[in-house]
Amino acid sequence: MTTDDKTNDPALKSWLVSANQPDCHFPIQNLPFGVFTTAGKPEKRVGVAIGDQILDLSVLEKTWLIPISKDIFSAPDINRFMSLGPKVWAEVRAVVSALLDASSRTLQDDEDLRALALVSQADATLHMPVQVGDYTDFYASKEHATNVGTMFRDPDNALMPNWLHIPIGYNGRASTVVASGTDIHRPLGQIKPPGSDGPIFDACRKLDMELEIAAIVGTSNPMGQPITVDQANEMIFGYVILNDWSARDIQVWEYQPLGPFQAKAFASTISPWVVTRAAMEPFRQAGPVQDPEPLPYLRQKAGYNYNLKLQVTVQPEAAAKATTICKTNFKYMYWSSPQQLAHHAACGCAMRSGDLLGSGTISGQDKDSLGSFLELSWNGQNPMTLDGGESRTFIEDGDTISMTGWCQGDGYRIGFGDATGKILPAVQHPSLKEM
Amino acid sequence: MTTDDKTNDPALKSWLVSANQPDCHFPIQNLPFGVFTTAGKPEKRVGVAIGDQILDLSVLEKTWLIPISKDIFSAPDINRFMSLGPKVWAEVRAVVSALLDASSRTLQDDEDLRALALVSQADATLHMPVQVGDYTDFYASKEHATNVGTMFRDPDNALMPNWLHIPIGYNGRASTVVASGTDIHRPLGQIKPPGSDGPIFDACRKLDMELEIAAIVGTSNPMGQPITVDQANEMIFGYVILNDWSARDIQVWEYQPLGPFQAKAFASTISPWVVTRAAMEPFRQAGPVQDPEPLPYLRQKAGYNYNLKLQVTVQPEAAAKATTICKTNFKYMYWSSPQQLAHHAACGCAMRSGDLLGSGTISGQDKDSLGSFLELSWNGQNPMTLDGGESRTFIEDGDTISMTGWCQGDGYRIGFGDATGKILPAVQHPSLKEM
Repeated sequence: MTTDDKTNDPALKSWLVSANQPDCHFPIQNLPFGVFTTAGKPEKRVGVAIGDQILDLSVLEKTWLIPISKDIFSAPDINRFMSLGPKVWAEVRAVVSALLDASSRTLQDDEDLRALALVSQADATLHMPVQVGDYTDFYASKEHATNVGTMFRDPDNALMPNWLHIPIGYNGRASTVVASGTDIHRPLGQIKPPGSDGPIFDACRKLDMELEIAAIVGTSNPMGQPITVDQANEMIFGYVILNDWSARDIQVWEYQPLGPFQAKAFASTISPWVVTRAAMEPFRQAGPVQDPEPLPYLRQKAGYNYNLKLQVTVQPEAAAKATTICKTNFKYMYWSSPQQLAHHAACGCAMRSGDLLGSGTISGQDKDSLGSFLELSWNGQNPMTLDGGESRTFIEDGDTISMTGWCQGDGYRIGFGDATGKILPAVQHPSLKEM
Repeated sequence: MTTDDKTNDPALKSWLVSANQPDCHFPIQNLPFGVFTTAGKPEKRVGVAIGDQILDLSVLEKTWLIPISKDIFSAPDINRFMSLGPKVWAEVRAVVSALLDASSRTLQDDEDLRALALVSQADATLHMPVQVGDYTDFYASKEHATNVGTMFRDPDNALMPNWLHIPIGYNGRASTVVASGTDIHRPLGQIKPPGSDGPIFDACRKLDMELEIAAIVGTSNPMGQPITVDQANEMIFGYVILNDWSARDIQVWEYQPLGPFQAKAFASTISPWVVTRAAMEPFRQAGPVQDPEPLPYLRQKAGYNYNLKLQVTVQPEAAAKATTICKTNFKYMYWSSPQQLAHHAACGCAMRSGDLLGSGTISGQDKDSLGSFLELSWNGQNPMTLDGGESRTFIEDGDTISMTGWCQGDGYRIGFGDATGKILPAVQHPSLKEM
């Protein structure tokens, strides 16, 4: 796939030299959107990551430099900006790219404006970039669905009969989607221990992560008006990394017949920078062959997978460094995000700016490309040994899970930053305090 | 159950005589909250239903009569008001009750203020009363769960082993919760017709309703902090009627393993007046005996069921009048709404002001007390004959489904008004237009 958008030119360099390092996640070709505060200015506002800095768009929108109406970026989320649509997204991307280009003097030479508009990432706190209306989680990796079906149900019929026809998904919990860096308490819930007659209420014993990419819906469709896959692609503003934390023992007891609920509702962590679809365009490619051919409403005119490398580390509280436990790639997904979005709206469901669509756990075919502890330890049967010598089947208290990813360009990376979370011990349930 | 709150006194009468009719849904003991507009004033604002009128609280909050800060009721939803908590709810209820009491002269004798603050319901348009953060749908009628399990799975094991231990629920779709009166297009979706090798994409052939009551969360709990059942009850602001429209043929093909998705995502209709928990208090009672005894975190110190009569009518487009097809009662539910809310938060899930918790379909034991066409027609095997002679197994295009309910007091009713929706024909999917 190629693109003739100048903002994607691999030869572009910024006058901000930190952006030009080959392993920097935020070169001038990326320009992801996020929401931040600083100690000196606690109001949430929208910025673009560039090198080790943030370009504060709430400052720029008050000048003549940004060609859209005011108070789009002096906002606690990017929803209003996203709802303006792809033409405005492209205009703003082009303007920001031009301002940061090594050849441009406008901002580079304006010391006063630079002091106002550039904030060091080290001095900023990042927040949820979007207000999530609805959060939906899909299940689009054939390898992951096969592994889970083998463990939870029947190895001979691991994939449900509907899986090759429907981008299977379920509604997640929007209220607990949090930005990277938020600590997470180990959840409480109902568990039925092996051999026990009935359930108990206790802290989760099989705490897991799920490595996913989430599409962020930028523009809406009205209720009752379905969309094609290609229209769905146009509605997507960008993508983030998603850790869909999962309590496997709670899940296996509760999930029939209505699906996962408390096992997934305690937290979902996203990376704070929304990488735009425009920045990812050079890395777009066809996905796996879909056989049987999808029904016409799910057919796509182009490939909507992305060559996006992903990896996961775990760092126990006492460990000196993190251990990489998974390396995989978003390109493996069987169903694309636009197919998922088109399916989602097929019944007439209204999709809104800020909706989050998790891809489903991203697992490849190799043993080290599995996107969950459930698969990596095969439901606890095969413990992993970490670099410090510790052993893990599932996540333990004090562990920090960190996910990162990037599209590798020629001399630059379209990086996603990190989706990181540390697990704190379970709290005591208030009903027990009363006893 | 009794209450010594004066606002619930059965002897109270209003100077608004329409409120004093014994079958009026909105007597002075009710005072439900809603959001409305009028032709002359298109800004959404909060009002209380009284008789055939609406008391415009956005007018009253600008006077000395309402003892809370301004701009709580000049709002497009009641979320801000709800987030102020039970003490403020009680204060406002007491003030409004006193203003409308037959013995009070303040508003009754102030012709100018009355002209500003009272709006005829016939002249108003009602809107969604709350901004729904997350919508969750439970499955708490033992009769309904047994009937569905019998039809969809195994008559000998109709209830899943978890059902008597967990208030089973799943996350619904918040973006398509709509107020009564909104027309609904028949959904499109994947269906696997009997005997067919693979699925087709077509308009739903088994369109259904589900009669439910939904609890509306008024105050929030922080992420990571579970709550007791009694705390959960205090968090509930009130209740509405909910029609959880369902596409049974889409559901049966898609729901394994992650639960209902497109089958429920096209629309959910609620009644526009939120009946407060305070108004329902005299009708609170114990639910069915729960055996086995729930785990400690689900135990309730009091009964949280309500004696709330419910009925459903269907009116075909050509029919002169509607036919009542279901009469049931909310008191039959096995799990109470506070138990559902406490379970929901048990893992640490944050609940927010405006969250909607559907009870699950309310079915009794009698043949005419079943809250869905699926059960009433036994999945199409036993067609119903309507009063005009038409036959129905599922909902047909042009049918209007209307749900209503009330708590019957001594000479008055705490009414919910209607949750009504008409089914329009399916739209054409845009992928077919392109062919």
